Amino acid sequence: MKAEIIGVGTELLLGQIANTNAQYLSGELAEIGVHVYYHTVVGDNPSRLSEAIKHAETRADLLIFTGGLGPTKDDLTKEIIADHLKREMVTDDNSWKQIQDYFMRTGRYMTANNEKQAHVIKEAKVLPNDHGMAPGMFVKEGSHFYMLLPGPPHEMKPMFRNYGRQAIIDQLEKVECIESRVLRFFNIGEAEIAEKLSDIIDAQTNPTVAPLAGDGEVTVRLTARSDSRENAISLLDEIEKPIQEKAGEYFYGYGDTSLMAELLRVLEDRELTITAAESLTGGLFQSEMTSVVGVSTMLLGGIVCYSNEAKIKLCNVKPETLEKHGAVSEQCAIELAENVRKSLDADIGISFTGAAGPDSLEGHPAGTVWIGMSFKDEGSKAVLVKMAGTRNGNRRRSVKMGCYYLLKELDKK
Amino acid sequence: MKAEIIGVGTELLLGQIANTNAQYLSGELAEIGVHVYYHTVVGDNPSRLSEAIKHAETRADLLIFTGGLGPTKDDLTKEIIADHLKREMVTDDNSWKQIQDYFMRTGRYMTANNEKQAHVIKEAKVLPNDHGMAPGMFVKEGSHFYMLLPGPPHEMKPMFRNYGRQAIIDQLEKVECIESRVLRFFNIGEAEIAEKLSDIIDAQTNPTVAPLAGDGEVTVRLTARSDSRENAISLLDEIEKPIQEKAGEYFYGYGDTSLMAELLRVLEDRELTITAAESLTGGLFQSEMTSVVGVSTMLLGGIVCYSNEAKIKLCNVKPETLEKHGAVSEQCAIELAENVRKSLDADIGISFTGAAGPDSLEGHPAGTVWIGMSFKDEGSKAVLVKMAGTRNGNRRRSVKMGCYYLLKELDKK
Repeated sequence: MKAEIIGVGTELLLGQIANTNAQYLSGELAEIGVHVYYHTVVGDNPSRLSEAIKHAETRADLLIFTGGLGPTKDDLTKEIIADHLKREMVTDDNSWKQIQDYFMRTGRYMTANNEKQAHVIKEAKVLPNDHGMAPGMFVKEGSHFYMLLPGPPHEMKPMFRNYGRQAIIDQLEKVECIESRVLRFFNIGEAEIAEKLSDIIDAQTNPTVAPLAGDGEVTVRLTARSDSRENAISLLDEIEKPIQEKAGEYFYGYGDTSLMAELLRVLEDRELTITAAESLTGGLFQSEMTSVVGVSTMLLGGIVCYSNEAKIKLCNVKPETLEKHGAVSEQCAIELAENVRKSLDADIGISFTGAAGPDSLEGHPAGTVWIGMSFKDEGSKAVLVKMAGTRNGNRRRSVKMGCYYLLKELDKK
Repeated sequence: MKAEIIGVGTELLLGQIANTNAQYLSGELAEIGVHVYYHTVVGDNPSRLSEAIKHAETRADLLIFTGGLGPTKDDLTKEIIADHLKREMVTDDNSWKQIQDYFMRTGRYMTANNEKQAHVIKEAKVLPNDHGMAPGMFVKEGSHFYMLLPGPPHEMKPMFRNYGRQAIIDQLEKVECIESRVLRFFNIGEAEIAEKLSDIIDAQTNPTVAPLAGDGEVTVRLTARSDSRENAISLLDEIEKPIQEKAGEYFYGYGDTSLMAELLRVLEDRELTITAAESLTGGLFQSEMTSVVGVSTMLLGGIVCYSNEAKIKLCNVKPETLEKHGAVSEQCAIELAENVRKSLDADIGISFTGAAGPDSLEGHPAGTVWIGMSFKDEGSKAVLVKMAGTRNGNRRRSVKMGCYYLLKELDKK
């Protein structure tokens, strides 16, 4: 099956946003063995969109559209496609109910043009939108397939992942079984892991082995093709073994997990509570923890002590500590972690204090961070981390480092 | 002049990178009055690239290619275009000298395929590459123009900015002046603003008026074309007036600003300090504030009080308040905001308490959030917000709402 991805939206042609949707879909389609030969972007213009559809039909079996499903007048993707396919538009009751519910729930005023979002092409398979109002569609006509997805990536991606992907797989004549496994590594660079795994990477055919760096972590994606799920999985197991032998000390989890998710799993298993005192991270550690459902049994709360005043008033750091050692110090990190742990009688206290950047702080270069850890009845310690990123890169990396070192400490206990 | 941007590279079709080059060039071309009607992406495949060129010639005057100018075998953009135009390739002496210099300077070993990078299409205007080895080209043939740019953005952007842009402007018969202005709105939906502005949007010709929703906000982009910058700007001023009359109560800023940036600007102007007590947001408000350089004069720090225990122990909320009204209440929000403000003797205290979701809390549906605000010597209040997003969508939106309501309150003072 050959596919073309057609991004619809004048904002793309004006350079207001990049076509990240095409990137995402291309990666997903490659995984299920669908070949993408072209991306096209066209504006909110009926005749040019029609032309793009006709041209794409000459070179692709599957046309995937993103954008133009919203409520305003310049959203016209589905209308143009319906017209092109000579099909009517009908109201999808489920979508219409969902839109009405949304406005009821939020107490907001619903304008008339919102009903337009519930209109779908007749006989289309409706793809539910779990993160927005406009539903997606999958239409078969003759030898062609048409998939319509919303433009906002946070709506489009889960819709494709949860509904669109399977709709396409169902149409593939010979379904090869493709299984992927993502291994996650931390505290090692992409070049370093690529060197460690160079024999395996050079020899790869099936499964493929693809390291990818991103957001301070390295992932290695293994993808195996076979005639059955079982065989594909055993191919993955086979190739994972030597990878773990060579780089296992940096491995921390599979798939969509994160260092924070792994930390929460351990805290939950051991029924431990945690609290934090955050200076340069400014609440980011606790905010990321709070983003997970059901953390209330683990995270009690904590302190944001961005200023020295807050370190003293909210976290009882001794003024002498700040005078003698400064805020960017082992001593300060330990006092913060211990005091915040005691203030809520938690099992674990963690603290972050350092120079986020871009400027140095107290003579310490940007990226110098002390992470303090205090364990009930088991003492406290602090580790020094040095980073070379941007201000917010350093802040995000500090949070990851905090999770990483806590996991290491908890592993020993 | 109509342009089409053609990205060449299989890595784009596999989803390994996003086509940010097309975004950059689109913005640049819009500025000089060149209309971009299509983006195309095609792989490193001779016949499909040839087809894309032929098709683009039917709908554009200027074809801009990015990628495929490098030394390896799959870099074939210029060879295919030369072939298409029936022109020879010749060695560009300056580029060849530059490549040899590079290898001399770095002491690296030059492989034979590097000479290929100095080959250019005969009679092309050569665009120097100040950040890499492959030169760009600008070719006129009949009524069409062809611009070839390298793929890596850090080479492509300066080449276009310093040489390509002017080469195009030189060919424009009448240089139109284009000015854009982005208006940012909050607490109003895209459909609602489109309805409010429907007369203006329907009547638009010049300037154009384009609403766009994203991340809980709506922007309206105005773009005016005229013979001078001055005239374009007065066209923008003219059309902004009725827009502000109809939707000004939701307007909060221009261009790349954010609600947090606007709040920080006001705090800085008035030399006010702020602190926060965060329950469902879990530190997100303070973390977002900390992401900005130089907030230490404004943000002192604060409390994350995710559990009721933390509300009592860290923020002195009266247990009776939680028993009688619950955590998701006006009373709790006000106590949190007042107490956290007093604990650091700040000018402003803000608090967030509510049900992030997905589950309801104390009988309040997910998305019910109280935002408390306390002002030194000026009393406290709380506002109720209802949202219908995901857990993290609600948390992010709460932070924006907090900035929004604080801005409104500060506006009154």
